[in-house]
Amino acid sequence: MENIENLVKLLSRLPGIGPRSARRTVLHMLKKRETLLYPLADGLKIAGDTVCDCAVCGNLDTTSPCHVCQDTSRDKTTLCVVEDVADMWAMLRTGAYTGQFHILGGVLSPMDGITPNELHISGLLKRMETDTIHEVILATNLTVEGQSTAHYITEILEPYTVTITRLAHGVPMGGELDYMDDGTISIALKSRTHV
Amino acid sequence: MENIENLVKLLSRLPGIGPRSARRTVLHMLKKRETLLYPLADGLKIAGDTVCDCAVCGNLDTTSPCHVCQDTSRDKTTLCVVEDVADMWAMLRTGAYTGQFHILGGVLSPMDGITPNELHISGLLKRMETDTIHEVILATNLTVEGQSTAHYITEILEPYTVTITRLAHGVPMGGELDYMDDGTISIALKSRTHV
Repeated sequence: MENIENLVKLLSRLPGIGPRSARRTVLHMLKKRETLLYPLADGLKIAGDTVCDCAVCGNLDTTSPCHVCQDTSRDKTTLCVVEDVADMWAMLRTGAYTGQFHILGGVLSPMDGITPNELHISGLLKRMETDTIHEVILATNLTVEGQSTAHYITEILEPYTVTITRLAHGVPMGGELDYMDDGTISIALKSRTHV
Repeated sequence: MENIENLVKLLSRLPGIGPRSARRTVLHMLKKRETLLYPLADGLKIAGDTVCDCAVCGNLDTTSPCHVCQDTSRDKTTLCVVEDVADMWAMLRTGAYTGQFHILGGVLSPMDGITPNELHISGLLKRMETDTIHEVILATNLTVEGQSTAHYITEILEPYTVTITRLAHGVPMGGELDYMDDGTISIALKSRTHV
């Protein structure tokens, strides 16, 4: 019973999984040992042993520089700055962006002791020096911390001759005004475009 | 990247986890390799290797008979019949029940080809013959299948001199009538008790 309880406790520590769904998950996996439980145990071990941080952009991959940084078909002169790996993967999935990435590893948050030193900002400045970057796209999240981080980066990039842009803000695709928060409607109105 | 994608794919197959939360989970675990990822990989392997079905009640445990069946402090004359392991664990957690269990391993569902032969019903009849059971508590779920399974078990237990009971049905603790479905209100009214 302790082996099961131990597994339930570990699974409960994953984001979005409570004790109840952890128990359901353990029962499900014990029913599918060969096709799910053992492959998952092996997959975890392999990923843990092989995945490392990309020294260039901060992505997680089995090589450093990562496959994205090594991809010669990607535009070397555009750099998209994101908060974390999940944001980079979200951008990659769209296929709409073909440039380079730089992962900050978080956002400025003086309350939580996250100052520029805690973020990968020196790496960003080094890339500005060594690479030929024409445009930096700030794609931090539209939160207070995300926006103040974007503001901070805009300031420290001032010495460089580079175009700084940020993602457009407004009503998302499929969005219905009736269900939209006031902030989104306000910013969509303020940033309205000519048709 | 394939190692990460493989792990995301495996995690997506767990109940209640979609591709998005699987990715979030993988990133979370890769950040906590020593405290979460490796322990989880080991825990899965150990549980897979050691956990077996209890030959008596059908519980999952590292021994057979399981700890619950072996527990001499539990009443041997009362048998609670449940659909699956999760139901048994839910009963155990309450601490309100101190008897034995019997897990059916499902419910009758002719549409899905689940006949009495697919359930652990012969084992139940064997226990009725060999053990001294005074009361059988039917604790199948309050679904159509659960109730017809309970009905079926009531019929096949007719030859035995045993008290057959089922869990009370009605308004759950903390339940507000306004948010309750019609079926629950109807059954609570029909089964009303004297104060």
